[in-house]
Amino acid sequence: MFNKVGLIAKKDDERVEETVQSLIRYLVERRLPFVLDSECATVVPDGGLDVRSRESLCASCDLIIVIGGDGTLLNTAHTLSSKDVRMLGINLGRLGFLTDISRHEMTQQLDEVFAGRFQEEERFLLHVAVVRDARQVASNDSLNDVVVHRWRTARLITLDTYVDGSFVNTQRSDGLIVSTPTGSTAYALSGGGPILHPALDAIVLVPICPHTLSNRPIVVDADGQVEIVISGARDSAQLTCDGQTTLELTMNDRIVLRKKEVGITLIHPTGYDYYATLRTKLHWGKEL
Amino acid sequence: MFNKVGLIAKKDDERVEETVQSLIRYLVERRLPFVLDSECATVVPDGGLDVRSRESLCASCDLIIVIGGDGTLLNTAHTLSSKDVRMLGINLGRLGFLTDISRHEMTQQLDEVFAGRFQEEERFLLHVAVVRDARQVASNDSLNDVVVHRWRTARLITLDTYVDGSFVNTQRSDGLIVSTPTGSTAYALSGGGPILHPALDAIVLVPICPHTLSNRPIVVDADGQVEIVISGARDSAQLTCDGQTTLELTMNDRIVLRKKEVGITLIHPTGYDYYATLRTKLHWGKEL
Amino acid sequence: MFNKVGLIAKKDDERVEETVQSLIRYLVERRLPFVLDSECATVVPDGGLDVRSRESLCASCDLIIVIGGDGTLLNTAHTLSSKDVRMLGINLGRLGFLTDISRHEMTQQLDEVFAGRFQEEERFLLHVAVVRDARQVASNDSLNDVVVHRWRTARLITLDTYVDGSFVNTQRSDGLIVSTPTGSTAYALSGGGPILHPALDAIVLVPICPHTLSNRPIVVDADGQVEIVISGARDSAQLTCDGQTTLELTMNDRIVLRKKEVGITLIHPTGYDYYATLRTKLHWGKEL
Amino acid sequence: MFNKVGLIAKKDDERVEETVQSLIRYLVERRLPFVLDSECATVVPDGGLDVRSRESLCASCDLIIVIGGDGTLLNTAHTLSSKDVRMLGINLGRLGFLTDISRHEMTQQLDEVFAGRFQEEERFLLHVAVVRDARQVASNDSLNDVVVHRWRTARLITLDTYVDGSFVNTQRSDGLIVSTPTGSTAYALSGGGPILHPALDAIVLVPICPHTLSNRPIVVDADGQVEIVISGARDSAQLTCDGQTTLELTMNDRIVLRKKEVGITLIHPTGYDYYATLRTKLHWGKEL
Repeated sequence: MFNKVGLIAKKDDERVEETVQSLIRYLVERRLPFVLDSECATVVPDGGLDVRSRESLCASCDLIIVIGGDGTLLNTAHTLSSKDVRMLGINLGRLGFLTDISRHEMTQQLDEVFAGRFQEEERFLLHVAVVRDARQVASNDSLNDVVVHRWRTARLITLDTYVDGSFVNTQRSDGLIVSTPTGSTAYALSGGGPILHPALDAIVLVPICPHTLSNRPIVVDADGQVEIVISGARDSAQLTCDGQTTLELTMNDRIVLRKKEVGITLIHPTGYDYYATLRTKLHWGKEL
Repeated sequence: MFNKVGLIAKKDDERVEETVQSLIRYLVERRLPFVLDSECATVVPDGGLDVRSRESLCASCDLIIVIGGDGTLLNTAHTLSSKDVRMLGINLGRLGFLTDISRHEMTQQLDEVFAGRFQEEERFLLHVAVVRDARQVASNDSLNDVVVHRWRTARLITLDTYVDGSFVNTQRSDGLIVSTPTGSTAYALSGGGPILHPALDAIVLVPICPHTLSNRPIVVDADGQVEIVISGARDSAQLTCDGQTTLELTMNDRIVLRKKEVGITLIHPTGYDYYATLRTKLHWGKEL
Repeated sequence: MFNKVGLIAKKDDERVEETVQSLIRYLVERRLPFVLDSECATVVPDGGLDVRSRESLCASCDLIIVIGGDGTLLNTAHTLSSKDVRMLGINLGRLGFLTDISRHEMTQQLDEVFAGRFQEEERFLLHVAVVRDARQVASNDSLNDVVVHRWRTARLITLDTYVDGSFVNTQRSDGLIVSTPTGSTAYALSGGGPILHPALDAIVLVPICPHTLSNRPIVVDADGQVEIVISGARDSAQLTCDGQTTLELTMNDRIVLRKKEVGITLIHPTGYDYYATLRTKLHWGKEL
Repeated sequence: MFNKVGLIAKKDDERVEETVQSLIRYLVERRLPFVLDSECATVVPDGGLDVRSRESLCASCDLIIVIGGDGTLLNTAHTLSSKDVRMLGINLGRLGFLTDISRHEMTQQLDEVFAGRFQEEERFLLHVAVVRDARQVASNDSLNDVVVHRWRTARLITLDTYVDGSFVNTQRSDGLIVSTPTGSTAYALSGGGPILHPALDAIVLVPICPHTLSNRPIVVDADGQVEIVISGARDSAQLTCDGQTTLELTMNDRIVLRKKEVGITLIHPTGYDYYATLRTKLHWGKEL
């Protein structure tokens, strides 16, 4: 089924050790070739294992097992460059939206996966480019969200938004979240955005604390282009991709967002249910 | 371009008279064949004009001009049965999301339209069926929204929701709005839903005053099936389609929603801009 | 400390039996005089116990123990007419905002209470009168909230609101919630209202699904007068007090709200902590 | 009525000139003693007028007329130290919540005021102190709000909140707004807070984009003490008072808020109506 498995683990989390060791035993017993990232390597006795950088690991494996939380899987997604890699997330205790396999049921689930019984799910990324004085000064990819937000200032910033070249509005706010369906249950939800089903080819624009109360989240087609222009003269703003600050922005900077051509492929156990995850994570069913 | 034009006017609104008369003069001068609904007929002197029921009118025309507000256009959309009809909405003063042509610029805009210069836009409808004891007891179409809500009771109702056969959640609330992109700027917006761009092939489920605070609007693919089951034993609920109450619901009733195969086609002047309508209707740009 | 204890139990809940029997044993052992409501009487063997109507019970006791949920305590509060009665709420499993003593720790807590170690907390009620054609046609009291909402109609209703004689606004909505601090964690919270600390002498007006997005909850002094007028010609509305529908309303009806002069007094164990209840009920601390 | 009038004008706004000149003519004609701040002085020809620092001006006048927007009045409020001063706000075009007199009706309104016909309204301020390692390292006053928010980081911060010594909750969010009634229509409203009537002796705590969806605004008594502790180890946060950043915060910093003993007194024309201002500012009555 899979020719080579890569193991990538969360940094600085002692709970990783046992799970990684258990995973290695599992792979060795089944004679499945595997590669470790440096994080995994620190928790196993030195012994001729194949340890590589994340970049090299991602390039050489066709199944990547991420041990950690959604953040670890997000980071790994940024490194992937090919659609032919599949990712599988094992959480360390708390169910994740992306890391949906518990380490306690890891062995049975992997048996299923290596027997070819699993679900595949594509998730798209946003590509963002920052254009300043007609030159691209930065670019990045996001699986969750791209956020333009005020920075080192208590003042609101002023943003002009365009979708497919059409002017949408000028807003004064703390910032604007552009989120994929994957990110709709992350920061965008805290900002008042809706949940977008992961299969949806759409993105949502969520204003953060907008000055105008009728500035509401807008869902648009993911295949279009979203452009945000910093339009306030004294604005101090920052670009954040998947929670990592990326670039300080200045007036007239244009932030141009497009769906990235190549997405990632998640692997879930057969019977995986997005809504079950949603119910658990959002405590639906818990009475007030 | 168009073989026969149908005129449909808002009921009981005296502002209709002048606009309908002006429209008839326009059509007579240009020798464009037209048909009137009974409402239009009441405001013109009796004189051998072709007056028909809305059903007959909708069946015989290939362009229908609606004079009134969005509500009048909604009502007309329910009567349409064929995709080969186009609709054009003329408002009586206040810009509508669907009736976007002002009566003051009506003549110039119609010149453009009859010269073949216009934009077409498809909008889909929701088909809803109510299944009781394995029998369909009612069905209806909605351009804006289908709402299941409590009725003659101060008690919350309990609803189980399924999307494409997957259980989503059990919620206790005042009700649930299922809205098309067209309806996302109507009642769903008041309920806290996001704005969906009209070109999006998606629907949004908006809980009304849900007991669980994390029950948030969910956007799902419009090509799937949404099913809502009245699950509370003593629930008293009602089905409302586009603001018209349709059917009293009882326990175990299943409300099944699907995208209707045939939508409607709106005609807009060249240069029509959805976001401009949004800015005007939501008072964006007005300072606090 | 207390001369006579009244026991009032939730209707139609089998979990009541054991708790009531245990409470009676407790009171008999300590030779504390007590009275039962008819609900409590059904779960104990007939044996010369003092069984009374709720009205008579409330009039003759100076401590009333409510066994059930917040709803049972709400109902009891409506019967009370004198400030000299204290209420203590025992829940049947799920922590209530008002019924904060678990039946499992009931005995120890009552030992404390009868030893004079407890906290008292006053909660105010809203008095509502409906004035039609200059005549009062109905009146009621609410501990949680008074709601004016649409009824048997899918149409929005139009409400004019006045505070202390000053016109506040005309709103089109599904209705308006006027809530005490006690009610602020009930229906008003689902409608988007804030939490009001119980000691606050304030009420909050929460519009339900208002057509105008900037119609937001307003908190005003509880010592003023709030007046709501049904102003839409074809409106069909209903008055609901603490979740019990009370009166069908028609155009020009004036709903006049004032703080009731006499409130109720809740008894809590020493160390009772409102915020701890809030954290438990709202699942604060639970990770997403 | 008033012994000496102080004039304070908005900085760097050319619309100030005409209004200030007109005001000076008005005061000279009526032989009312007055003092100018340096901003006002720049727009009048040099001529023996009494020009002072804001501090000195505030100390020597019993009526201060602020020409500008709410921001100018906020700034002036920070300078005031005595309750015996009254403030009157003249706006430069757009109605303010605090600067409610239009320059066009300024003369008539001032005639009324100097004839003793006006309304007085007290507004309280929040006093905030930052305690680090048991030492107070900063303090400030706010008329609108005190905000603790993340700073130079895309990560959420973790805040522990206490009211009157009771632990309220630990929240992960972008920050927390503590707002007076005066500030409830400013930033707190954008963050989802309720409107608090200005006469209310209450403050509202509004979480900014909280991770836990049930973290809702809480209204508490203004006479209590609110304490916020920066509890995340790697948190980078900032304190902002009335929109002016004040102090960078680090872990374990305690932000202690109390109502300031001395408030400010606003003067309004007779017939001033808070709700009329609210209706205008929030565009109530504007149809969707």
